[in-house]
Amino acid sequence: MKAVQQIAFGLESLQITELPTPTPAPHEVLVKIEAAGLNYLDVALATGVYSKTLPLPRIPTSDGAGVVAAIGDKVSKWKVGDRVTVQYNQLWQNGKATPETNHIRTGVSTPGMLAEYAVVPEYALVRTPANLSSVEAATLPVAGVTAWTGLMGYAGIQPGQTVLTQGTGGVSLFALQLALAAGAKVIATSSSPEKLKKLQALGAHEVIDYKQYPDWHEEVKRLTNGAGVNATLDIAGSATIVNSVKSVGMNGFVGLVGFIAGAQLPLDLFTIVGNYIRLQGYSVGSLESFQQLVTAIEVNNIHPVIDSVFPVDKVQEAFRHMGSSGYFGKIVVEMN
Amino acid sequence: MKAVQQIAFGLESLQITELPTPTPAPHEVLVKIEAAGLNYLDVALATGVYSKTLPLPRIPTSDGAGVVAAIGDKVSKWKVGDRVTVQYNQLWQNGKATPETNHIRTGVSTPGMLAEYAVVPEYALVRTPANLSSVEAATLPVAGVTAWTGLMGYAGIQPGQTVLTQGTGGVSLFALQLALAAGAKVIATSSSPEKLKKLQALGAHEVIDYKQYPDWHEEVKRLTNGAGVNATLDIAGSATIVNSVKSVGMNGFVGLVGFIAGAQLPLDLFTIVGNYIRLQGYSVGSLESFQQLVTAIEVNNIHPVIDSVFPVDKVQEAFRHMGSSGYFGKIVVEMN
Amino acid sequence: MKAVQQIAFGLESLQITELPTPTPAPHEVLVKIEAAGLNYLDVALATGVYSKTLPLPRIPTSDGAGVVAAIGDKVSKWKVGDRVTVQYNQLWQNGKATPETNHIRTGVSTPGMLAEYAVVPEYALVRTPANLSSVEAATLPVAGVTAWTGLMGYAGIQPGQTVLTQGTGGVSLFALQLALAAGAKVIATSSSPEKLKKLQALGAHEVIDYKQYPDWHEEVKRLTNGAGVNATLDIAGSATIVNSVKSVGMNGFVGLVGFIAGAQLPLDLFTIVGNYIRLQGYSVGSLESFQQLVTAIEVNNIHPVIDSVFPVDKVQEAFRHMGSSGYFGKIVVEMN
Amino acid sequence: MKAVQQIAFGLESLQITELPTPTPAPHEVLVKIEAAGLNYLDVALATGVYSKTLPLPRIPTSDGAGVVAAIGDKVSKWKVGDRVTVQYNQLWQNGKATPETNHIRTGVSTPGMLAEYAVVPEYALVRTPANLSSVEAATLPVAGVTAWTGLMGYAGIQPGQTVLTQGTGGVSLFALQLALAAGAKVIATSSSPEKLKKLQALGAHEVIDYKQYPDWHEEVKRLTNGAGVNATLDIAGSATIVNSVKSVGMNGFVGLVGFIAGAQLPLDLFTIVGNYIRLQGYSVGSLESFQQLVTAIEVNNIHPVIDSVFPVDKVQEAFRHMGSSGYFGKIVVEMN
Repeated sequence: MKAVQQIAFGLESLQITELPTPTPAPHEVLVKIEAAGLNYLDVALATGVYSKTLPLPRIPTSDGAGVVAAIGDKVSKWKVGDRVTVQYNQLWQNGKATPETNHIRTGVSTPGMLAEYAVVPEYALVRTPANLSSVEAATLPVAGVTAWTGLMGYAGIQPGQTVLTQGTGGVSLFALQLALAAGAKVIATSSSPEKLKKLQALGAHEVIDYKQYPDWHEEVKRLTNGAGVNATLDIAGSATIVNSVKSVGMNGFVGLVGFIAGAQLPLDLFTIVGNYIRLQGYSVGSLESFQQLVTAIEVNNIHPVIDSVFPVDKVQEAFRHMGSSGYFGKIVVEMN
Repeated sequence: MKAVQQIAFGLESLQITELPTPTPAPHEVLVKIEAAGLNYLDVALATGVYSKTLPLPRIPTSDGAGVVAAIGDKVSKWKVGDRVTVQYNQLWQNGKATPETNHIRTGVSTPGMLAEYAVVPEYALVRTPANLSSVEAATLPVAGVTAWTGLMGYAGIQPGQTVLTQGTGGVSLFALQLALAAGAKVIATSSSPEKLKKLQALGAHEVIDYKQYPDWHEEVKRLTNGAGVNATLDIAGSATIVNSVKSVGMNGFVGLVGFIAGAQLPLDLFTIVGNYIRLQGYSVGSLESFQQLVTAIEVNNIHPVIDSVFPVDKVQEAFRHMGSSGYFGKIVVEMN
Repeated sequence: MKAVQQIAFGLESLQITELPTPTPAPHEVLVKIEAAGLNYLDVALATGVYSKTLPLPRIPTSDGAGVVAAIGDKVSKWKVGDRVTVQYNQLWQNGKATPETNHIRTGVSTPGMLAEYAVVPEYALVRTPANLSSVEAATLPVAGVTAWTGLMGYAGIQPGQTVLTQGTGGVSLFALQLALAAGAKVIATSSSPEKLKKLQALGAHEVIDYKQYPDWHEEVKRLTNGAGVNATLDIAGSATIVNSVKSVGMNGFVGLVGFIAGAQLPLDLFTIVGNYIRLQGYSVGSLESFQQLVTAIEVNNIHPVIDSVFPVDKVQEAFRHMGSSGYFGKIVVEMN
Repeated sequence: MKAVQQIAFGLESLQITELPTPTPAPHEVLVKIEAAGLNYLDVALATGVYSKTLPLPRIPTSDGAGVVAAIGDKVSKWKVGDRVTVQYNQLWQNGKATPETNHIRTGVSTPGMLAEYAVVPEYALVRTPANLSSVEAATLPVAGVTAWTGLMGYAGIQPGQTVLTQGTGGVSLFALQLALAAGAKVIATSSSPEKLKKLQALGAHEVIDYKQYPDWHEEVKRLTNGAGVNATLDIAGSATIVNSVKSVGMNGFVGLVGFIAGAQLPLDLFTIVGNYIRLQGYSVGSLESFQQLVTAIEVNNIHPVIDSVFPVDKVQEAFRHMGSSGYFGKIVVEMN
């Protein structure tokens, strides 16, 4: 089969090659991958910025969707032809994460999705939402599930609450769409007037240009008559966390999911204690959460926001685009 | 002031009369009532079907909305001209109900809303949703808050879940609208093809004619691929509870809120135990729930479904219509 | 190996026989069973009172504890010599029950525990509490986990709350011990003065002779100054449910777990709605709940109340005793 | 009446004086104060270290307990002779804190407890636990309720979980006692071998000398076989928060309640995100929480740990002792 292989650290080492097609063992499914979605983690792993201990060569990327091509013995949940999307934390089926649930992460501790075929345990798949193409579904496993876990799993957003979304990356745009589906009011931030318009077109009730307002928590407070929002997901870490904490109101929820712009939290306790704020670290989510997301997408006919689709031949270009900050929504590689 | 007085049990005893306009004491607000909404309880109390111990004469009805006409000393939350709607369980501010929270019920233990003016403690009011008229807001205190407490407070409905609504009374139509606002799928029942069409027009994804399907839980199961719904509010009691219990899926929620058609529960335990079903009795809700409902109505621009508006001169007619089963939505009396 | 086999319905058909010792497949563990606990379900299945469709011959009983004698390939959680107790709903690992989690029930859809050896998937075991013998641990899987799920999983009992326990069967005695460990006050019922004394010796703060007080909910209300208890587990069904519902206070919890004395619920809605009561059907619990129970037993040095221990040669006698109502605590069969 | 007055900032300005005894207005209660408990906040307010804007002269301290000496008109909850303890956030009755609930804080925005008499709204009192003296009860309003809110309200500690308590101040010792009452395992820290022995005598299962182990989270991990604890309350802020975060396990809870040793949080996100940790800021708790604490204290016969009791003549000495770090438990001033 055709596959993208990373043979050394650095994006220039991502190469298309020919590998043997794997065979599903009992309880495993062979998925013909149609599309693979990119996350910032994929770039960090490929460039080796986080760690250079990952064994090479490897097939990169965690997010993927396709069609069941074959099933191993004893598979009962899927049949050939089923449209499926792959779970990230394969062993995290439901309930809370434990050290065990996070051992097997698709594309990190298993071969990734940038290949014509992948073998996946039958329990680590969800049905692809009926209203989505595989290209669209390939955006869900990390970013979509992360937004779901934070807003619906932890914060329990309800109609009439207000959610602040930060920037135009995958998690934040899913947060925007899910918050709207849940009947919440959305305030969205971006640094570009053009992107702010797009956010409004997606349904954001209010938008804030954070370049214009470096202390954008003040704008958030103004737009909420001083009350602050009920919840936000902080993506960037050091660069945004102080504003995030000051943007939520009493009993507010701040999901800590990323540290693109630094892992240090320059926080003081006064606001956090005085406002009964919850800071909740977490990462992605369970299969059950993914299944709930799938149903929510279908019932509300949500279509993920896709920045761009690259053919597999342009995989290096796709990764470079992911490493930039110019995108609006998800970047997908089509396997065709 | 003009007021409707009930001088004896029986709807024919509801009479328009002239009474002294009350004066707000400290911490009290004088509300110019613009509209009063009817609930089945109002009819039951007026006819004496529940009890004939209620002291007469009395001003009936629990639901009302209007404008602040004057404020007593020490009132800090409201000012003259504010548009307000009245809380039913006046002392139930937030958290769970206690014996104390349910002592003072508007229109039951206090003078009701069918008068030009009513005095209400400042803590027993919510702001009228900005997108609603007083006629619309007068439908909210009992039926709207009951639907909110059940679906959002207890069941915690999330996007992608499925809610079953039963019939076309006030609680059920609010349940339908709130479930849709929360991103849920709605299956709605009625006994009339014409009403089923109206339910679809309101957004119900599926409808069931329960006359055609007396075992309508089977239709519910069919429409959910055997899974059953996540939640339903059972309004009628004896007549519907068996079907309600069989309509929800595993870990399903059945809100027990009424007994229009009998208070006996002819249940057996097999389904309830085997399916981990929750039967939750409750009644109306807290001021905090009402405030959340107000915000949800504004953010999602929900307009209550109104069956008919009667001028106060036709108050007997309004009560008789409420006692029939021909309505679709709420019945309101305008005080003009 | 030596095993008890049921070759026909009826307790007289329980016979000791010699069967081939099973071999663990990959991911499976061979457990040398040291003790098997009895539940009423075992009697009902053995006599065929529920159903005569269970395939025969079978090895009966669901509860068992012992020592790992051998492990299959790829087993990573256990090693030979580990003391283990067997999970009832083998596939229910954590979170909520689903139709899938309850497919495989030890001793119902798998060979039971009345044998020298049993093969169990590695994920369907917990470590035996360090402070318990296998005889004691063999009482936990059904009755202990049922009490835990109800009081801690659903009702969330906290220090200072009051729990009502009903009778002296296994679930109720575990409920008493767990409620005490959780810092709750316990009111316990029984029909015999001698048993009431034993309940007090176990720590019950108050006891009620339900023979003396057929309307024992009145005693419960008296002992709680009219407030009612926070939670109770209803074991008997029809015979007790009305008293159970009237014994809990506002926002009270009634766990519906059994129907020994009838599955019909002769309930009316007035108390349930007016008191915001939760009726929660459920059955046993997840592996995670069992693990939590194990830790709670260790930290609080809880020892299950054992009525009697029978050698395996007296297995029929053990089942007959279980079918009587004379016991106080759990009945265990010791293997060899 | 005799009262302690603070006429200028500085502990030397706390003076005993004679003031008019206040009279209860409608809905108010006159409490004869028998004992006032000290918190670090009292010292900070008295020395002016936080702020010098507090209007002087003032009667200091927030915690107090005594007997109802007279009641105002319309008081229905209390009668003369009732033993009562005073709620700190007077308006916070139940549910979550809001900006409104925290406006009126006993001894901060109202006259404090260091006087023979105090007037308190009838809704801002709890009954004194039947098993406690007023001296003991005077320790509860801030420290006891803070421990309850964190462990039971937020973290929902259950039997078998493990709680880490930090040091020997009031909140931490209540946390130890409540965790034990709830059936949890307790690991306690202190810097003095003598205090560690006292902690063991109180029931701590494990103790850690944090002077001996500056990286005491490693000891916590060792004592929990690498799992970490379920919950801890961080009292000191900057000095302890890094160890606190590293001491909890997956899905662990860190209550942020104080900043005695600095308000800066020198945190990095890796542990928080990777371990799904919840950092929850909060302060004290609701009247309902206090009532729950009272019942928990009675059912479990908990007696607060009292370091020392000073007569009111030695009030300056009491404050100085509170400002030191040599105490073990609560410091109380008896009004005699």
